[in-house]
Amino acid sequence: MSEKSVSSRPGEFSLIERYFAPLATSAGAAHLQDDAAVFAPDPGCELVVTKDMLMAGVHFFKTDPPFEVAQKALGVNLSDLAAKGAEPKGYLLGLGLSKDISEEWVAEFCRGLKLVQDQFQIDLLGGDTISCPDGPLLSITAFGQVPTGKVVRRNTAVAGAHLYVTGTIGDAALGLKLRLDEELSAKSGLSAEQRDFLLKRYLLPEPRVEAAQALRDYAVAAMDVSDGLIADLGHMCATSKVRVQLRLDDVPFSAATSALIMADAAFFEAAITGGDDYEILAAVMPQDAHGFEEALQAAGLQCSRIGELLAPDTSEPAIALSLNGKAYALDGAAGFTHF
Amino acid sequence: MSEKSVSSRPGEFSLIERYFAPLATSAGAAHLQDDAAVFAPDPGCELVVTKDMLMAGVHFFKTDPPFEVAQKALGVNLSDLAAKGAEPKGYLLGLGLSKDISEEWVAEFCRGLKLVQDQFQIDLLGGDTISCPDGPLLSITAFGQVPTGKVVRRNTAVAGAHLYVTGTIGDAALGLKLRLDEELSAKSGLSAEQRDFLLKRYLLPEPRVEAAQALRDYAVAAMDVSDGLIADLGHMCATSKVRVQLRLDDVPFSAATSALIMADAAFFEAAITGGDDYEILAAVMPQDAHGFEEALQAAGLQCSRIGELLAPDTSEPAIALSLNGKAYALDGAAGFTHF
Repeated sequence: MSEKSVSSRPGEFSLIERYFAPLATSAGAAHLQDDAAVFAPDPGCELVVTKDMLMAGVHFFKTDPPFEVAQKALGVNLSDLAAKGAEPKGYLLGLGLSKDISEEWVAEFCRGLKLVQDQFQIDLLGGDTISCPDGPLLSITAFGQVPTGKVVRRNTAVAGAHLYVTGTIGDAALGLKLRLDEELSAKSGLSAEQRDFLLKRYLLPEPRVEAAQALRDYAVAAMDVSDGLIADLGHMCATSKVRVQLRLDDVPFSAATSALIMADAAFFEAAITGGDDYEILAAVMPQDAHGFEEALQAAGLQCSRIGELLAPDTSEPAIALSLNGKAYALDGAAGFTHF
Repeated sequence: MSEKSVSSRPGEFSLIERYFAPLATSAGAAHLQDDAAVFAPDPGCELVVTKDMLMAGVHFFKTDPPFEVAQKALGVNLSDLAAKGAEPKGYLLGLGLSKDISEEWVAEFCRGLKLVQDQFQIDLLGGDTISCPDGPLLSITAFGQVPTGKVVRRNTAVAGAHLYVTGTIGDAALGLKLRLDEELSAKSGLSAEQRDFLLKRYLLPEPRVEAAQALRDYAVAAMDVSDGLIADLGHMCATSKVRVQLRLDDVPFSAATSALIMADAAFFEAAITGGDDYEILAAVMPQDAHGFEEALQAAGLQCSRIGELLAPDTSEPAIALSLNGKAYALDGAAGFTHF
């Protein structure tokens, strides 16, 4: 099942040497001249590993600039690590390329990887490149570390904890809507800055790496929001066996998202159920709330208390929503899936 | 870019709970209920990580039984670890599924994973599942460990070392030829057992995990043979900056491969340049040769000394071949690529 490339782009070994090897600066990566990398967590630490795959046409548009695609692919993995309280260390890259992908695409993609590497002081450890007819496909395994025993889990939320979220919610989902409907921005009276902000929030998630220390120090449970606020909150509650009272009034929206919601109230549910936020949901006990808020503020991150975790009660919904002090029921299906 | 599944197969979370979570037995995998796994190498050890992706239609046939595809996907990663002298620990699984992949396929695939897990005492640590139109696509990251500093590299071969290879060469490449030409077996006078042996060697590589300790103890350099003996030897020589004198008379062939070569001499070059052997090439200094041979024998592995590594000499070919004491030149293009 040998497959000779008919692409005009250089072969795998040339691409590795020219574009990927310069990204692999640690001794354990052996300049990508071997089939495996070697590394170890720092003394007193253990590794946290995560894997997120992105497929053209499913998780990004094939026409998206590779410079941004690379940042997104690496960013969503760093977001997972951050939510676990881990400091990022390095990553492996699996790349599936269709024949039409040019050398220029690879060069720009690697420029995007380099930007994120430099931002978070991580490097490429190794990977694999294959032919993938519907590619590009990106399969990243990211490594972080935490002091041993200090990982922050999703399934350890407890009744009585406050529920927090970083940043603002819904921007990416509405950015995607703007992208799919070119007239939406003008129809909704958005400014050019607001439109660009939302489009960028979809294209370029900002992993909340700066939140890792605060999460380790103060959170009893955490996860990043990738499937939508409501769906991911459902995952936290289900795995932790708690319920949540979520105050929709307190869910943080950007000015641009607020403007869209003002123009059409249907965008409200799109914002709280849409995906790709890459903000962090955290459960924090009341006695740690002040410390948590201060630590996030010191890290330069916005953080909002949006609800309270409650003891399980099968006669009540797992997620109880309120708006203006009244119970609120969602119209549409909660959450979305890339699958 | 939400994509609702139109497949009759259960959704991602159901598949994970039903089929993948039972494979994730370590505490650090958290029953796959989190976005990341936690683990650490044993004290005094460091991690060895490798990533190999397999795409339907490129690395295996879409009609291959999923029970075997799983064993192959995991096996080729364990082969990389073994060649580095590493003991396997666990793995992450990225799975890209096309719509037509059934729940039964997933169940059988997981049965194959379980078989390899049990054989080598490893477990699933985590992963990701996405939609992939041309799938199945398998992206595995495998973790092993070595005593710190003991990894066996590809680029550390030195002049004066003997060159060894485990097992037999060419079986998988000829198994693929049998598969692509149903009449070849009868035409060549192969027995049914010989045909089945070669077909199985293509479908089910056997990672030489048992060789890891001997490689750590005695080899100066090693790699597994996946792109073909000649091509991979070329990689070892190029990265190590040595040449090799390879005695083709000493390359080990199975009875089935020998029978095919007897029937048609063209299969000789197919055997030494074909891929998917997943045997191990090792460079061993003469004073360690006896210990190496005995250790591999004790591990139940066949091992053949097939050449000698030489100092670089730009006036000579990097790979000098001999047959019956005379220089031998390859007819065809050496090596193959999945890329």
